[in-house]
Amino acid sequence: MALTIIGTMAFDAIETPFAKSEKTIGGSGTYCAYAATNFMHSVNQVSIVGGDFPDDVIKDLNGRGVNTEGVEIVQDKKSFFWSGKYHLDMNTRETLVTDLNVLADFNPTLPESYLNTEYLLLGNLVPAVQRSVINQLKARPKLIVLDTMNFWMETAMEDLKEVLKMVDVLVVNDSEARQLAEEYSLVKAAHKILAMGPKFLIVKKGEHGALLFNGQEIFCAPALPLEDVFDPTGAGDAFAGGFVGYLASTGNLSFENMKTAVVMGSVTASFCCEKLGTERLKTLTDQEIQQRAAQFVALTNFTLSCK
Amino acid sequence: MALTIIGTMAFDAIETPFAKSEKTIGGSGTYCAYAATNFMHSVNQVSIVGGDFPDDVIKDLNGRGVNTEGVEIVQDKKSFFWSGKYHLDMNTRETLVTDLNVLADFNPTLPESYLNTEYLLLGNLVPAVQRSVINQLKARPKLIVLDTMNFWMETAMEDLKEVLKMVDVLVVNDSEARQLAEEYSLVKAAHKILAMGPKFLIVKKGEHGALLFNGQEIFCAPALPLEDVFDPTGAGDAFAGGFVGYLASTGNLSFENMKTAVVMGSVTASFCCEKLGTERLKTLTDQEIQQRAAQFVALTNFTLSCK
Repeated sequence: MALTIIGTMAFDAIETPFAKSEKTIGGSGTYCAYAATNFMHSVNQVSIVGGDFPDDVIKDLNGRGVNTEGVEIVQDKKSFFWSGKYHLDMNTRETLVTDLNVLADFNPTLPESYLNTEYLLLGNLVPAVQRSVINQLKARPKLIVLDTMNFWMETAMEDLKEVLKMVDVLVVNDSEARQLAEEYSLVKAAHKILAMGPKFLIVKKGEHGALLFNGQEIFCAPALPLEDVFDPTGAGDAFAGGFVGYLASTGNLSFENMKTAVVMGSVTASFCCEKLGTERLKTLTDQEIQQRAAQFVALTNFTLSCK
Repeated sequence: MALTIIGTMAFDAIETPFAKSEKTIGGSGTYCAYAATNFMHSVNQVSIVGGDFPDDVIKDLNGRGVNTEGVEIVQDKKSFFWSGKYHLDMNTRETLVTDLNVLADFNPTLPESYLNTEYLLLGNLVPAVQRSVINQLKARPKLIVLDTMNFWMETAMEDLKEVLKMVDVLVVNDSEARQLAEEYSLVKAAHKILAMGPKFLIVKKGEHGALLFNGQEIFCAPALPLEDVFDPTGAGDAFAGGFVGYLASTGNLSFENMKTAVVMGSVTASFCCEKLGTERLKTLTDQEIQQRAAQFVALTNFTLSCK
């Protein structure tokens, strides 16, 4: 049940109304790996970092079952750096700095030991690189999950459409779904996107939860109403990592289990927001995850026959 | 189990990307009454209209079990008129015209037959008028539900706070909850608002559903994802009317049944958006309501044990 994750490993500088950090460990691949290893312990990581990336983070990931053979270290260059500032509503953020650094040359060759992966999570990256990773695999994985963003819709739509034909699940937020489908109604947008290739579409709506579309079926997962959102950075990646990690741990790809996986993704994302960076994802216990999942049941459960 | 509803009965001019109408029957009291009478048939209506208000609407309401003895008709004046235009996202609208007309003098005296009402729905109106209605009743109703809006928070906050102390359930949208509590976090805002008087708070979030707060408990109801929203006018009133109508029909005020009532409010609101004005609420059948409620179950139901 090995899961291969491709994504960035980076430094972030984050400013929220509640927290400020000049140099936090971040990157979509990092968040996905920490999230997924709360559910399973056989992850193959694909990424690129500079000589400045802390070795103890790599060792920490190794200790959680993450194989970092596929993480290229370019000693004389710097790691990818992103800096952002959140507004009071925490749903909108401003990107202050994006220094690609090593990421500018990222063109990964998968290690031999990765080539029979059963689950593949393509973190937000250049669509052509995402496609190259799929093409290197010896056999088609049981499940390919794709994360992407508006930037690639604006700069590499044709490449993105090619990748969409190759994947099982697309994960985007609501504005990205609308942009990709050129449809305001999310239901209409979902039908258009499902016709582009993926069998499942997940639309993340931040504090309003997430929608899962499959054929004519829809599942609506709430987000846990939080007293405070300390730092939402990486919540989307934590969602994707928790979602795929849970699926890989169960090996069940039915729509029913996809619904549970969406809830587990939301559970993971809710923890992610409680502390800065990846901190909270590192200390999570099985019991905490089960308790919070039970809160999601209580949050949405109702009966039609109270008369 | 009589339910007394106070609210406006009016003419609307509505423009949406899909529909346009110069003169539709509207008003919060009208929507609430049509919505509630899908669940029960003993409504006492309190409102004021001009000589121009169509008698056949009054007769139609009477036929649904709505007593209009408390609807004052001022023959030589015009009914309240509102005109609005929706933007493409359907979540934001612009008010083009508000002609108070008869509403400027609205100071209702309840008919004797209304004074023992068990359920009271105070539609969006001047808080002082809402309070005067409560004070006229002979006995405290089993349940008082209050709808209000940002306008009263800006112009009559002290009066509104007085009314809040007297009610059981407050229904507002998310931005109004934040404004009333002066808190961005909805969880913190809810706790502050519950400390102002109401035992239950319902926060409507449009296409993102609704939250029900009671003490430390939270319930999250989705909105039905719709292919098209034809006309969202009155959806909030339809929600309130369906919510209270269902509660009055069951007589059960437990938190468990409040959750079901929130779903029934969402069901009613989803129908309301399918046609212009009150049209869809008039033709609803029990079977349609039950079928849609079952859709809400399917939409949110998941199991934690698919392993």
